[in-house]
Amino acid sequence: MNDGYLEHEKEVVYRVIAERRDMRHFLPTSIAPELLTKLLQAAHHAPSVGLMQPWRFIRISDIHLRKAIHAQVNEERMKTAQAIGEFETTARMAEFMRLKVEGVLDCGEVLIATLCDHREKHIFGRRTLPEMDMASVSCAIQNLWLAARAEGIGMGWVSMFDPVKLAKLLNIPDGAKPIAILCLGYVNSFYKEPMLVEEGWAKEKPLSEMLMENHWQDVDSK
Amino acid sequence: MNDGYLEHEKEVVYRVIAERRDMRHFLPTSIAPELLTKLLQAAHHAPSVGLMQPWRFIRISDIHLRKAIHAQVNEERMKTAQAIGEFETTARMAEFMRLKVEGVLDCGEVLIATLCDHREKHIFGRRTLPEMDMASVSCAIQNLWLAARAEGIGMGWVSMFDPVKLAKLLNIPDGAKPIAILCLGYVNSFYKEPMLVEEGWAKEKPLSEMLMENHWQDVDSK
Repeated sequence: MNDGYLEHEKEVVYRVIAERRDMRHFLPTSIAPELLTKLLQAAHHAPSVGLMQPWRFIRISDIHLRKAIHAQVNEERMKTAQAIGEFETTARMAEFMRLKVEGVLDCGEVLIATLCDHREKHIFGRRTLPEMDMASVSCAIQNLWLAARAEGIGMGWVSMFDPVKLAKLLNIPDGAKPIAILCLGYVNSFYKEPMLVEEGWAKEKPLSEMLMENHWQDVDSK
Repeated sequence: MNDGYLEHEKEVVYRVIAERRDMRHFLPTSIAPELLTKLLQAAHHAPSVGLMQPWRFIRISDIHLRKAIHAQVNEERMKTAQAIGEFETTARMAEFMRLKVEGVLDCGEVLIATLCDHREKHIFGRRTLPEMDMASVSCAIQNLWLAARAEGIGMGWVSMFDPVKLAKLLNIPDGAKPIAILCLGYVNSFYKEPMLVEEGWAKEKPLSEMLMENHWQDVDSK
């Protein structure tokens, strides 16, 4: 029987998982190309449904494109604020507007993660759950996040954008779909807690509220 | 500036990412409850869009339920085979039928990962990309996978089931949705390569085919 890793090695794995943060504050220091490739290789080691490897990464090196992406994020940020004002409260909208929700212009590297095109050909594990392609790319992004954390590089996953508009800007074809603007960069320090907790936007619920046995129990009423 | 982890610690992070496998062969040895909780705590450290923490885990301890889940997986396996026969070739269908696609009855623990209900309330980062809840749960599952690998425990993500039927079996309410049958267990050994590569079902494409700069390039024609 396989016995797993040594105690101090296990600790590193738990530690990197616990210390990873969704970052929005970056230093402008650039990331060495070999290191970026190493991080992307970690992403590429992700599991994928039926081995379809649906992840594609577009590195944004053109500063004009980066600015255009930032403008799209800002546009969606305003629409999100409006929606929060409508469906929650005006106070909540004001709170939202005070949050730093992205570091697109500040970070060392911007990557766009997209789902590949021609995904309908992949039936294995997707006949009833076509969204398994999104799951696979998300696992790749989590790998990237953890490897970056170990390298002292912060990452933020920005999902505040219109995928149709972003696809148009980057010539992403029909069938493919951008799902993440990834901001990567060195940081002064990693947040001790998730930034949304530090800023008082949200409270974390404990694991115990997420667990059930054999059948669904209403966790809200526990 | 934060300098990241020590060299040997970084190596552990890259190693666990590279050595994680989607397992379908298990030993029946049971997993200690405290260890299972530790693994789920690692999952619970995942990032989530707007801190919504949309993951719910149902531990299946009832053997009758486990058998019923297995029957559902087998039913979908036959439908998948049929679809592969229709949209690909009969030879490919036969190849598929020879693969071991799950270890539901063999593994030490079965967990059902589901998206929570009432997700429509969460607007932050989901106004244009509602599937970010799926992304967050997938990141949690990848954390679980990596922590399990370090502990010498294999995991398989089975997505071959009808989510509506499985929801009915487990009293999962409208609005929530099961997305994974997770098989966890000790193993004799981890596959050296992804099982679908070892079995000749699929070839892995290199990272270079997944990378682009500034705009989409057709990776197929590279």
